[in-house]
Amino acid sequence: MQTLKLKPPYLIFIGDTEDKIFAKTGLGLVEWRPELCLGQIALSKNCVDLGIPSMSLEEALDAGVRSVVIGNASVGGVMPDKTLDVLEKACLMGFDIIGGVHTKLNSIARLQSAAKKSGASLVDVRIPPTDIPVSTGIKRTGKRLLTVGTDCALGKKYTALGLEKDMQALGWNVDFRASGQTGIMIAGSGIPIDAVVSDFVSGAAELLSPDNDTEHWDIIEGQGGIFHPGYGAVSFGLLIGSQPDAFIVCHEAGRKHITGWPEFEVPSIEEVIERTITIGSLTNPSIRCVGVSVNTSELSDSEKNIYLSALSAQLGLPCVDPLRCGTTAIIDNIAIEFPETKPAS
Amino acid sequence: MQTLKLKPPYLIFIGDTEDKIFAKTGLGLVEWRPELCLGQIALSKNCVDLGIPSMSLEEALDAGVRSVVIGNASVGGVMPDKTLDVLEKACLMGFDIIGGVHTKLNSIARLQSAAKKSGASLVDVRIPPTDIPVSTGIKRTGKRLLTVGTDCALGKKYTALGLEKDMQALGWNVDFRASGQTGIMIAGSGIPIDAVVSDFVSGAAELLSPDNDTEHWDIIEGQGGIFHPGYGAVSFGLLIGSQPDAFIVCHEAGRKHITGWPEFEVPSIEEVIERTITIGSLTNPSIRCVGVSVNTSELSDSEKNIYLSALSAQLGLPCVDPLRCGTTAIIDNIAIEFPETKPAS
Repeated sequence: MQTLKLKPPYLIFIGDTEDKIFAKTGLGLVEWRPELCLGQIALSKNCVDLGIPSMSLEEALDAGVRSVVIGNASVGGVMPDKTLDVLEKACLMGFDIIGGVHTKLNSIARLQSAAKKSGASLVDVRIPPTDIPVSTGIKRTGKRLLTVGTDCALGKKYTALGLEKDMQALGWNVDFRASGQTGIMIAGSGIPIDAVVSDFVSGAAELLSPDNDTEHWDIIEGQGGIFHPGYGAVSFGLLIGSQPDAFIVCHEAGRKHITGWPEFEVPSIEEVIERTITIGSLTNPSIRCVGVSVNTSELSDSEKNIYLSALSAQLGLPCVDPLRCGTTAIIDNIAIEFPETKPAS
Repeated sequence: MQTLKLKPPYLIFIGDTEDKIFAKTGLGLVEWRPELCLGQIALSKNCVDLGIPSMSLEEALDAGVRSVVIGNASVGGVMPDKTLDVLEKACLMGFDIIGGVHTKLNSIARLQSAAKKSGASLVDVRIPPTDIPVSTGIKRTGKRLLTVGTDCALGKKYTALGLEKDMQALGWNVDFRASGQTGIMIAGSGIPIDAVVSDFVSGAAELLSPDNDTEHWDIIEGQGGIFHPGYGAVSFGLLIGSQPDAFIVCHEAGRKHITGWPEFEVPSIEEVIERTITIGSLTNPSIRCVGVSVNTSELSDSEKNIYLSALSAQLGLPCVDPLRCGTTAIIDNIAIEFPETKPAS
């Protein structure tokens, strides 16, 4: 009855992946948790370089690595024999194997048998822990911020990670809480919320951000969107269980329709703010929006500045592109809204 | 990629259950689908009598029975050997075995092996079908009515079944659609919505009420409550996927707090109406409330009449206790709101 827990530090397995698109997991890990990524291991010379030392399994053992993370995605999800050769050897040497790939690690006989021999664990980050309880709705101590979105895949995880990093640098007491597979690898723990049975989805969200110090912030990775015709129930359950004190709406400038659902328009940011407060009030009546995070990758520098200023004036909230401007404006607003949680300095 | 399907007619197994409380499934089946219940079979003479012919397995076979339904609940969920003896024999004779008990039929070696020999199926109505898709949000043909609630366990299934029965008697083209285990046994098909992985809960709701004739009504059994701190996500997903044209709010007179969640007050009927319309509008902008169903079992006859009249005046909607007054007032309102679906008479 807890979240998934991974054992760092990591050796990142990159296979023979030559395209950065298929090495997103490995690249994300190195970007957000460089201190946990001691090395990389590949099957050929031409593959993606994560910019960290290349190591054999033996060197990784000497360096103190405890888990091998599958940092690439195979096309079609099938794991080639030469990949299995490396993972099986790693497993026999006692490394945990961590994967978020479609083929479940625990369904591969070679890996199962190796893990049994060495006592290593095969950790599928797509599979939620068992025995998740139904949510209680009881208020927990500490503060929580949830990133919500006008749609999927527009920066909810990135915004949460950027905020954690910037707040930590300023001395705030914060933790990123992961609700999706890549986030879980980066955080080293978490629950893949969308894979949880619907009766327990809010209960899983409660486990994800347990009681904490009064001034502590959990920065929770959002999923889906409360207006999403496919994944709305996941977003609803995560919102109810997270009991957020604050939320940030994530949006992509120029996106008109829900990706993959062309009949559904992307809701306005105002609608998402209002609906999130309406629903979130059930478990936290003082929930409020503290800012907006916009993916402005389609805009020039001057267009971006005009867009964000206009949006900020319209909403009366700090609006940032965390990749281009950082999250300072939002952190300043959190300090105003929740002064009791501000670091002393 | 479909709903669960059961094979009627049924022989109801009642074990040695002497208390009606533990025979709820069998009693519900006989109440709502007497034509499908050809007989009952028990382990002793003193147990609950469902009021249908007692039969041996051999007699049931001659009578044309195709499935044995476990109509009782064992305390603790463990299945005693003498129960297994009967079920194993039935399974070897080719009857499907249908159960909603905690112990999964498919996890019992004796039954598995018997089913394999005879080709019979072991149907666990708590287990959703595999390969449920993500919901599309695309509008389906035909009309849909969903029963929603101010809380759990106050008559959402009963209201839907009562409405189906009363509408059928008046010549309407209707089908009850089951979203929970007892409902599935009564309907002979359905999906246990709360057991579906959250990413697919709205997709399951879409499968549950497929395209139909223009004047046809699906009467969908609701689950949980949109203000429920534990099960709200299930209710949300079922609402989005059901795309109801109409809904009935189910309530229990006098209930103050969410059962099992004493810190949460039962929402007002007005709040449930407003919230259901707000959320349901995403996939059906013309969603509307057509009536209120109240469990008035705690009220005397005169108290009940005063309560329902006052509520009806307050809401401007027909308010009934389906058990004490039938559902005619609500059906009359459906005929006014959706005249194109009214039977020719």
